[in-house]
Formats: sequence, structure tokens, C-alpha cells
Amino acid sequence: MKILFVGDVYGRTGREMIESYLQKLKSKFQPTVTIVNAENAAHGKGLTKKIYRQLIEAGADMLTMGNHTWDNRELFEFIDDAKLLVRPANFPEGTPGTGIRYITLPHTMSVAVINIQGRVFLPPLDDPFRIVKQLVDEAHQKTSIIFVDVHAETTSEKLALGWYLDGRVSAVIGTHTHVQTADERILPQGTAYLTDVGMTGPYNGIIGVKRATVTKRFLTSMPVRFESEEGSGQLGAVLIQIDEKTGKATKINRILINDDHLFFD
Amino acid sequence: MKILFVGDVYGRTGREMIESYLQKLKSKFQPTVTIVNAENAAHGKGLTKKIYRQLIEAGADMLTMGNHTWDNRELFEFIDDAKLLVRPANFPEGTPGTGIRYITLPHTMSVAVINIQGRVFLPPLDDPFRIVKQLVDEAHQKTSIIFVDVHAETTSEKLALGWYLDGRVSAVIGTHTHVQTADERILPQGTAYLTDVGMTGPYNGIIGVKRATVTKRFLTSMPVRFESEEGSGQLGAVLIQIDEKTGKATKINRILINDDHLFFD
Amino acid sequence: MKILFVGDVYGRTGREMIESYLQKLKSKFQPTVTIVNAENAAHGKGLTKKIYRQLIEAGADMLTMGNHTWDNRELFEFIDDAKLLVRPANFPEGTPGTGIRYITLPHTMSVAVINIQGRVFLPPLDDPFRIVKQLVDEAHQKTSIIFVDVHAETTSEKLALGWYLDGRVSAVIGTHTHVQTADERILPQGTAYLTDVGMTGPYNGIIGVKRATVTKRFLTSMPVRFESEEGSGQLGAVLIQIDEKTGKATKINRILINDDHLFFD
Amino acid sequence: MKILFVGDVYGRTGREMIESYLQKLKSKFQPTVTIVNAENAAHGKGLTKKIYRQLIEAGADMLTMGNHTWDNRELFEFIDDAKLLVRPANFPEGTPGTGIRYITLPHTMSVAVINIQGRVFLPPLDDPFRIVKQLVDEAHQKTSIIFVDVHAETTSEKLALGWYLDGRVSAVIGTHTHVQTADERILPQGTAYLTDVGMTGPYNGIIGVKRATVTKRFLTSMPVRFESEEGSGQLGAVLIQIDEKTGKATKINRILINDDHLFFD
Ligand SMILES: [Fe+2]
Ligand SMILES: [Fe+2]
Ligand SMILES: [Fe+2]
Ligand SMILES: [Fe+2]
Ligand SMILES: [Fe+2]
Ligand SMILES: [Fe+2]
Ligand SMILES: [Fe+2]
Ligand SMILES: [Fe+2]
Repeated sequence: MKILFVGDVYGRTGREMIESYLQKLKSKFQPTVTIVNAENAAHGKGLTKKIYRQLIEAGADMLTMGNHTWDNRELFEFIDDAKLLVRPANFPEGTPGTGIRYITLPHTMSVAVINIQGRVFLPPLDDPFRIVKQLVDEAHQKTSIIFVDVHAETTSEKLALGWYLDGRVSAVIGTHTHVQTADERILPQGTAYLTDVGMTGPYNGIIGVKRATVTKRFLTSMPVRFESEEGSGQLGAVLIQIDEKTGKATKINRILINDDHLFFD
Repeated sequence: MKILFVGDVYGRTGREMIESYLQKLKSKFQPTVTIVNAENAAHGKGLTKKIYRQLIEAGADMLTMGNHTWDNRELFEFIDDAKLLVRPANFPEGTPGTGIRYITLPHTMSVAVINIQGRVFLPPLDDPFRIVKQLVDEAHQKTSIIFVDVHAETTSEKLALGWYLDGRVSAVIGTHTHVQTADERILPQGTAYLTDVGMTGPYNGIIGVKRATVTKRFLTSMPVRFESEEGSGQLGAVLIQIDEKTGKATKINRILINDDHLFFD
Repeated sequence: MKILFVGDVYGRTGREMIESYLQKLKSKFQPTVTIVNAENAAHGKGLTKKIYRQLIEAGADMLTMGNHTWDNRELFEFIDDAKLLVRPANFPEGTPGTGIRYITLPHTMSVAVINIQGRVFLPPLDDPFRIVKQLVDEAHQKTSIIFVDVHAETTSEKLALGWYLDGRVSAVIGTHTHVQTADERILPQGTAYLTDVGMTGPYNGIIGVKRATVTKRFLTSMPVRFESEEGSGQLGAVLIQIDEKTGKATKINRILINDDHLFFD
Repeated sequence: MKILFVGDVYGRTGREMIESYLQKLKSKFQPTVTIVNAENAAHGKGLTKKIYRQLIEAGADMLTMGNHTWDNRELFEFIDDAKLLVRPANFPEGTPGTGIRYITLPHTMSVAVINIQGRVFLPPLDDPFRIVKQLVDEAHQKTSIIFVDVHAETTSEKLALGWYLDGRVSAVIGTHTHVQTADERILPQGTAYLTDVGMTGPYNGIIGVKRATVTKRFLTSMPVRFESEEGSGQLGAVLIQIDEKTGKATKINRILINDDHLFFD
């Protein structure tokens, strides 16, 4: 079985990339399930109900989130009904939503999708190592196919989580830095790993944001109103092939679509 | 003309990768100049005189550094004589060493090599944007071929510096995260850009460090003595082709050597 | 001569404390000049033109700022005309406003007022040590009476600046943490020092903010809309006595007014 | 009943201050129990077995720690036998030692001593609000007299914990910044509160460290070997009076001993 995972959808440009390419990617690669990180889908900040539906209709089977989960307050109102969404599992006890969900499949085991957030250079949360371990143990009662979106800033925390989960899950894929890394590999015990899948959004912005505003901020240290960059887009994704009997990954391939990497069906 | 740049050489494994592959890479790609980031060359922490010489003899024309510059105190003693080394240019006034040097070439303009360090999630330093701008203006008096090693943590600060320097320098290549990114491109005004070139060191460590110690630290929050990981190595590099009349980059290619990406001469 | 310095005026409650007590404090202690930190005067975030005028009319001879300087965009429009205001001197070159101003006095030397901001756990800025040194050298051309508001987070950076300036200025007084410290002293070379003068604002908030919102943020890690706390107020200030011939401080006294420390004229 | 709490004992100078003044303080104020923060007792970094014993013999009934708990590796070996020591309770599960202990008293209820560490600008740990709540609920089974040492960097996190625990514990006293604050008060529900009790160590260092090394670090951004400052000392402490029937605090007084605040028996 195959999992297609698409990185942080950012604003309108990101959603347009989804509209333009998700079906084409699914036609070409025939993933069994498709997962999309949506923490920046609404103007770079969180998610609205309308966009939640739009992404599901566009072909996502499950959405993951990150540190921008609550940036748009609409999510509070519909998260209890959003059965196709996980937010970082190590948010404090009592937080609305859940950090693990299962995608049920007709002819095979279901797929557990876990979202976890790092703590280095990010707000304090519960211990991602312990929480993810508990959820993975729980998931193993139901399935061997476990996908983990590690939303974190530093390469060391992501690599540590990847190695920590090696052999326990099918894939550990990073999000949050918005730049795709080139270190995809199958770890020795069979876990597919990639430090960051990269963003799906403006190709000529700075992690999605209008260049002029970011540069102004760095040069002046003054607060600026962040807007999304305009113009052409990029899409960052990864395709993981998993042996559905063992849950072990057998192959991992990065996907990058932008003006410099055109997509061919 | 072509520049070969090799990312953070980490400890003994990193130096062995240099011994094993730098000449082969030079034979294959015929770079005009070769630059190597050496901030982690001595047991992951800084640089000794012996290793400085070793890296030069192995084929580097210039070394760059980063936040680990002063980790090994030996550098204080020989940095004034180390004419083939730059440390981040935005260290405070009065800091030993320099942040810009020129590689003189027989039949063409010399190559300016600049090292600059980011400030986000790193110790406070002088403004990298203003300092790099000054140095670039200075360098333009002598040459159009300017290479910048941006040593920084976040993708946003690196991207902002890359776009800020677009059209002013030949290449802006990131170091420090130790994981190669997949976003190499030629920016619109002719600057080659890559967020991070990746590390040259242990392939199965966590950014070079022994996995067990990093995991222990994350799990226990206790201080651990960091050692280098052992076993097989990786090498992260980038090859940039530059029009020597204009200083504009015409091509950028990532290079990655490890157990999953074997090198073929 | 005597300087009265009042710490971070926070929102409406802070302004009301100024209205209620500044004239009484001036009557009682007869300061030669009165300086007020105003970075939180407008709803906890920056300063408006109306509030600028209000604080001057209430008896301030000079206002200082901090990391909240630009929180209210109105300041951009009137900072060039605001001759009785300094913002941190180590904001980047080209920033509107100035970090040093002089209060001219009829029968004695003028008083230099410098505002400088720390960099530890605060956004990157120019080096506060070097910038404050330059400004102090410049001020010494005109006067021996120099007052420095060090706006910083950590005790170590404030103490380091205090000791660094000992004997070069009349007083180094900290702001920003909103809690008055008890370490007032005259350093060996004659500089009055206090790590933090404390806030002038709500007595029962959390550094001025409504308790419920701060607690909610800590417990849930969700974004909350910060509002000012209501109810009774506090005022944090310090009175420094200076030998006007030498510029050396001879006495420093903390002032704290709140429900537990009533003010007696 | 009365609790005397002495802040971060720092190095030899700090221990000498304990030797010189702890008995005098006990004679003068007659505390029922004496608690001492010892995280910096061994050369500024952690605690040795010898110093543990020395502090107990000098008159401490219980020691508290902080982020420097593990700086001296000796503690690993004797922490299981150190029945008069608590380390931050929100260290990860499985950490040696405990975050709550009881001091048994002959004629009254025992005193629960809790140590908790903040997470803002400090390494990631378990949630201090939830952990302290659990421990307080547990302690209430045994006693109404509960003392909490909140080891944290920012005033906002300490104040938030203080207000959060108001009415649930007898006292919330801060440590870690090494500078005593002047905001001692009894919160509305009967909890004694002080943001920081201040350090017991060198009076003329920078939070205990030799001034020259700290200044060098700020000016050069180079690593320096931190040593303790020498010369005269200071002692920071607080005396809390508690109604032993209700556990409510009735009085809180700061104590500061240094060259500017001499001690009179
Ligand atoms: Fe994102
Ligand atoms: Fe994110
Ligand atoms: Fe490095
Ligand atoms: Fe580095
Ligand atoms: Fe403030
Ligand atoms: Fe502030
Ligand atoms: Fe301490
Ligand atoms: Fe501490």
C-alpha cells in the first residue's frame, strides 16, 4: 500500500496547487491513502470549515496540523465534527480534537495517522517522545500501518524522533520548516523518514510570506503585517510504499512541483 | 567557472569522507575552487591547526566556519596565520579572524568567500543583513564572483538573506542544520541558492552526534556528554556553475554521498 | 540633583496611577527631572499621541520605551515631533526616533537620557554594550549626568550592563520584567543601579495582563487575546540623588505604591 | 509556624554566607522549618554529597534544586539516599529523586515542600501547572502547610503559578534569577508570594559569576570558562508566617544581607 503525504498547504496559492495537482498526483501514483498538512491553509494561519471541506473534497483522506492549529478561531467550533483531522497529540490534556485517527480501508488494515509537535524553539507542550510512544502502542492494537507527521523546528529533534520510532511505525515525516529536505531514507528497522516534506504554497515567498514584509522585519526589527506571497506556486510531497503485512516501509520518494521542477503525468 | 562547496565536516567520520571523496569529486566535476565548512571538524567542535592543514591538503581552497568557531581554543592561536579560513563576518568588532577572503585565480577574477551567521535561535551577533551588504559592496570592487556561506538555523532567515542578495552575489548556500535541503535553484537575478548543503559526517547519528546520547537527552532532560556517532558516513555538497564575466550563476547541483546514494566517478 | 524614574506605565490603570500619584511624588521628593517608561501606556502596547501628551502634562520630562515601542502604529507618525521621548538606541540604523536626548536645566548641566534594549530572550538588535558606550562617550561632551534605562529580560544582561557602565554614568535602571527588584545599590565607581524598577499598572494582573487570559494560555497553549487586568493599581519608581558636579550617584531609593504599600505625602 | 527559605546558594561564597548567618537567622527569627535552594552550591553548578551534608548540618531541614540539578554528576549517586532534598517535580517520569517531600514536625502537621520548574526560556519539561496541581492535591491528604519553590525565568510564569496556587498552598516563592524582587505579598486567598528570593553568594559578581568573564562573553560572543566571583557575599531569604490550623500565610518578610544591608541579631 502507498501513502501520499503533502506538506503544509499555505494560503490561496497552496490551495490552488492542491486543486491543480492532487488529482493528477493520485492518478499517477495511485496512493492508498492521501494525507495533507493544513496548518497554514487559511491565509497562512490555521484552517476554516470551508477550507477543511475543500481539502477533503480535493482528495485528502486526513488532514494534519501543527503550531498554527488555533490561529483561526473557527476551528474551535467545528473540530469536534472534523473526523478527518488530527492536531498535535501532545497539546495539553483537555485540548479539543485528537492527535490520532484511523483511516479505515476496504481490503486491508486501517492506517493510523498521528500528529506530534516538537518543543525545541516552539511553545512548551507535553513530551512528544512519551506521547507518541503511547499512541503508537495503542495503534499497534489495531494496525501495523502507522504514519507520523512530526511538526518541529530543528533537525535534531526530528531525527531523534525518527530514530526513536524506527521499527515501530511505517513512516516519520517532518513538517513546519516549509523547505523540503533531501534526506529521505528507510531507517534500518523499516521506518521511512524525511526531515521535512516542504510547503505547498507560494514558490517565491519566504516560507509562504510576502518577501518584502519578511525582509522589512529583518532589516528594521519592527512589527509587520504578514501577507501571503503571490505568483507561482510549489507543492511538496512524499510517497511512501509500505508492506501491508508488516507495516514496514519499502520505498520513499520525494515529490516537488514548482517552476523549476515541472510535473509530468 | 565552478565552485564546489562541502557542508559541515563533522569529526573523524567527516574527515574520512573528505579523504575518501574530495579528490574524486574534484576529478569528476573539475571545480575551479573548492570551499569546505569546517566548524565541526574537530570532534564536532571547532577546528585544530592539524585538521586545518589536513583539510587544505585534502583539497580545500578555503574553509568557512559557524557558531562552533571557538569551540576548540587552538583556533585562537593560529587564526591570524590561517589565510585560508573565514569565520562569520558579523562576530563583534575586534574578534580575531575575518569574515571575507579572496581566492586568487590565475586566469580569471578572484573569488570572494563570505561567511555570515544568522541570529534567530542563535546567540546575538551584529546584523547579518547590514554586514553582508557592506562586504558584498566591498567585494564588488575586486570581483563579480562572490560566494556566501549563510550559517543559520531557520529557513526563513536563510531564505530572506538569499533573496536579499539575489543579483548581488553568485551564490548563497546555507549550513548549520546538517540536513541537506532539496530547494536548490537559481533566483531570478542570477544567484544560486540552497537552504542547507547538509553535513559531511556520520550517516547514522543525529546531526553527527551519537544517537543514544541525543535520545537520552530528549528523554531525560539531563546533561549528556556528546560524542560523535560511529559507522558509515555521508557527504553533503553543492556544485555551482558561474558565468565568470557576470558573476551570475547558471547552474546548481546538489551532491549527496551515503549508503543510500553511492558515488560513481 | 535628583532624578525620579517611573517604571513601565501599563494601560488605563497605569495612567490613572500617574494621574493620582506623580504630582504627589514630585511634591514630596522634589526631583529635578522626572522620567517615565511608557512602552505599555496604550492598552499595554505602545504609545499614542494623546497618551504621550497626557504623560508629559502629568509631569514627565522625558519618556523611555522598550520592545513594545512599535506596538501602536500611531507612534510612527508623531515620533519625529516627540522631542521628549527616547526609544532603545540599539534599534537598527535608520529606525525613526532616537535613543538619546538631553533635558536642559536652568541652573545646572543638562541630563542625558539613554534607552537601550537587551538581546537575551528578546529580538535581535545591535550590540547594546557597544552602542551604549558610544552614546555615553558622546554624552560626556555635554554633561556628567547620564541616566540609562536598560530594557532587558535577564538579570545577567542587566547586571553586566550596570557593572560595565559603573563610573561612566549616573544611573543604570532596568525595566521590562514589570516586577520591582530589591537590589538597589550604588556600585563602587558611583553608578546607581537597580535591576528592575517595576511596573505602573494593575496590581492584581500578571505583569499587567488579565490573570484569566494568562492562566488560560499557560494551561492550554492556545492563543488568547490579552486584555489589561482591572481593579487596583501599583506604581513602581526609583529616586536617585546625584552629585551634580561629578555626576556620581550618592543615594538610590525604591518607591512602591500599591494596596500593600500605601503612599503617605 | 514560620518557614525560613534561603535562595540559591552559589559556590564557596554562598556556603560561607550560610555558615556565617544561617544560625544567626534561626536564632533571631525562630523558624519552625528552614529550606535552602542548593542548585548552585558546588562551584555554581549542582551539588555534591559533601556539600549536601554541610548544608544540612548548617541548619537546613530540606534542600530544593532547579535547572542546575544535574550539573554535578555526583548527585546521581546519592540522590536516592538524600531524603532531605527535592528536585523539580516536572522532570520527566523516571528521573531519579522526587519533587515533593514532607518535613515531619513534633507538635504540628508536617510541611510539604514542592519544587517545580518553569518552561519559558528554560528546557522543555512536563507541564508545571498540572504537575504542581497533582502534588498539591496529594499533599492536602497529609497537611495544609505546603511550600512551593518555583524555579523559573520569567516574572509572568512565576506570577501565573502564584495566582494559580493562591488559596491552595501556604507559599509560592521564586528562585533562579538570583536577584531578589520586592513584590512580597499575601495573595487574596492566603498564599504568600515572592517572585524571586534572590541568591546567596558573591555580592559583586553577575548572578554569582565572575564579572570579567560575563562581560567578556557579552562583548565577544566567545565561550568563556565561568568561575565564581570572589569577595564579599550576600544572602537572600524570606520568612513566612503561617496559621498552622488553616495553612494560610499571615505574613511574609524579605531578608537581604550584604555590604549595603548589614545583619543585626
Ligand atoms: Fe507550516
Ligand atoms: Fe508550523
Ligand atoms: Fe555544523
Ligand atoms: Fe552550526
Ligand atoms: Fe514593559
Ligand atoms: Fe518590555
Ligand atoms: Fe540558581
Ligand atoms: Fe536556576
